[in-house]
Amino acid sequence: MNIELIEAAAARIAGHVRQTPLLHSPFLDAIAGRRVWVKAECLQHTGSFKYRGGRSAISALDPATRARGVIAYSSGNHAQGIARAAAELGAPAVIVMPADAPALKIANTRAMGAEVVLYDRAGGVLREAVGERIAAERGLTLIRPYDEPQVIAGQGTAGLEIAAQAAEAGVARADVLVCCGGGGLTAGIALALEARAPGLRARPCEPEGFDDTARSLASGRIERNAQQAGGLCDAILTPAPGKLTFPILARLCGPGIVVSDAQCLHAMALAFLRLKIVLEPGGAAALAAALFHPDAVAGDDVIAVATGGNVDPGLFARALGML
Amino acid sequence: MNIELIEAAAARIAGHVRQTPLLHSPFLDAIAGRRVWVKAECLQHTGSFKYRGGRSAISALDPATRARGVIAYSSGNHAQGIARAAAELGAPAVIVMPADAPALKIANTRAMGAEVVLYDRAGGVLREAVGERIAAERGLTLIRPYDEPQVIAGQGTAGLEIAAQAAEAGVARADVLVCCGGGGLTAGIALALEARAPGLRARPCEPEGFDDTARSLASGRIERNAQQAGGLCDAILTPAPGKLTFPILARLCGPGIVVSDAQCLHAMALAFLRLKIVLEPGGAAALAAALFHPDAVAGDDVIAVATGGNVDPGLFARALGML
Repeated sequence: MNIELIEAAAARIAGHVRQTPLLHSPFLDAIAGRRVWVKAECLQHTGSFKYRGGRSAISALDPATRARGVIAYSSGNHAQGIARAAAELGAPAVIVMPADAPALKIANTRAMGAEVVLYDRAGGVLREAVGERIAAERGLTLIRPYDEPQVIAGQGTAGLEIAAQAAEAGVARADVLVCCGGGGLTAGIALALEARAPGLRARPCEPEGFDDTARSLASGRIERNAQQAGGLCDAILTPAPGKLTFPILARLCGPGIVVSDAQCLHAMALAFLRLKIVLEPGGAAALAAALFHPDAVAGDDVIAVATGGNVDPGLFARALGML
Repeated sequence: MNIELIEAAAARIAGHVRQTPLLHSPFLDAIAGRRVWVKAECLQHTGSFKYRGGRSAISALDPATRARGVIAYSSGNHAQGIARAAAELGAPAVIVMPADAPALKIANTRAMGAEVVLYDRAGGVLREAVGERIAAERGLTLIRPYDEPQVIAGQGTAGLEIAAQAAEAGVARADVLVCCGGGGLTAGIALALEARAPGLRARPCEPEGFDDTARSLASGRIERNAQQAGGLCDAILTPAPGKLTFPILARLCGPGIVVSDAQCLHAMALAFLRLKIVLEPGGAAALAAALFHPDAVAGDDVIAVATGGNVDPGLFARALGML
């Protein structure tokens, strides 16, 4: 992984991926005690940064491979990012989703033209087994959600934008807080910042109980979460940092920050009130860290990446109750 | 009023006003039966386009006049736009607000550094009388919400952005639907489009019962609303088109479109779901027209200006119930 791979991804996806704005509000600054800049990736196509990696990975395939199709496992944002990018690029797409995934997410993925294969999560079936069988039978290319160089490169294009937007805003030194699951986005941003904005430093933000990356960074080796599911931040619940992503994180990132689900809900409510954007809990973890863990950050500015906004209306209404 | 005034406003406010994105979603296209482009002015500073006009007007004052201060009457978005612009430009600001305005809006306006003068709306006191007395006593300059050339010019900068963004998206011919109260934004956009994108045509969108502009355009003279208050679209409830704005609208705009409050709520819910932005009812009228009045529009594309997102959490949760 290197900056050239990210620059090549940026060239492939230019004109397709949306350059998302860097928002701010004096009301959020007052809460955090410093200037807070929010990279609104919830405004990306499909409602999360995942479209960057999906478009990057599928566009990097040679035409014959692409024409055979791609496969991904995901119950959420990666599914939608892959489905949309595949449809745009004329690649058949199979998405393996748990049968108990929200009906809306299944419907959305189908509406984007993907074939959805459901598996019974409760029955002990592993999605990897389902996916590998289908991939082998049909000659499909698996697009992993984070341990995939072209996916990391695509997510890194968000880091190129942050570097340029921070410079335009006059921010030369700051922590860049990133909602972190497997670490694809955090690693991509860290690589982009290393090359383009060395005064900015990426830092992973995770929910309590799923702080595998924070603990891994502290111990220097890959640590796993005890639990596999639970809590509100479904978008960033992964068992452990990736084999490709962790060495990048270990080399480039500052310490992780851990936030509570309640803080994520509160950050969602404040993003509604002050920025007029919609965040999901896992997409609000970095903003929650910026607002409610000011002592974990140094400097006059902090940048929080608001990674996604695919949240059910009922849960969003619950977050608004924090106001 | 002319394009030079808008270009001069754009030069004055450059680097302060946010260039808001032009969003779209294939899911909204499917509802409307054509491509729907949403100019997300809810992401503007203070949560509505009103900051453009406020910054334009106050920055156009000569330094001595500006130092004496400005005054505005508003219970909503104009108040916040003026208060923030005044604070940034070092102008004292007095905002005359009804005593029964939402506590949050009064608090926000004060937090932005303005002096808030409350008047008793129920007691039959006219805000104009309160404002004129204070303006005379203190030598303040009144900034009217729409019948003010430098305010119209500032709002017109949104039209300059729409012209450029539509060209970038390959849209040469389309109706540009604008949520319309007194017509300052609609007039400004219409003037900008006339000069920069003659294939784009502005059209005002209003709620039922407050369709003064639609009726005025139909009759060719200024018509008034029978009622002065009511409904959900408080941001765009005005008694009649302005004396400055109406001749511009009559010369340049297509027919008005009238939407229901329920359609505005539904459009808010769809903007939440598909675009991840927060709209208030009056800020969703144009999107409601694009989605639910497809026969009122012609062509393969339509552009809807989403003018603001300053909505109470309870009302927003109610809108989400439409999903």
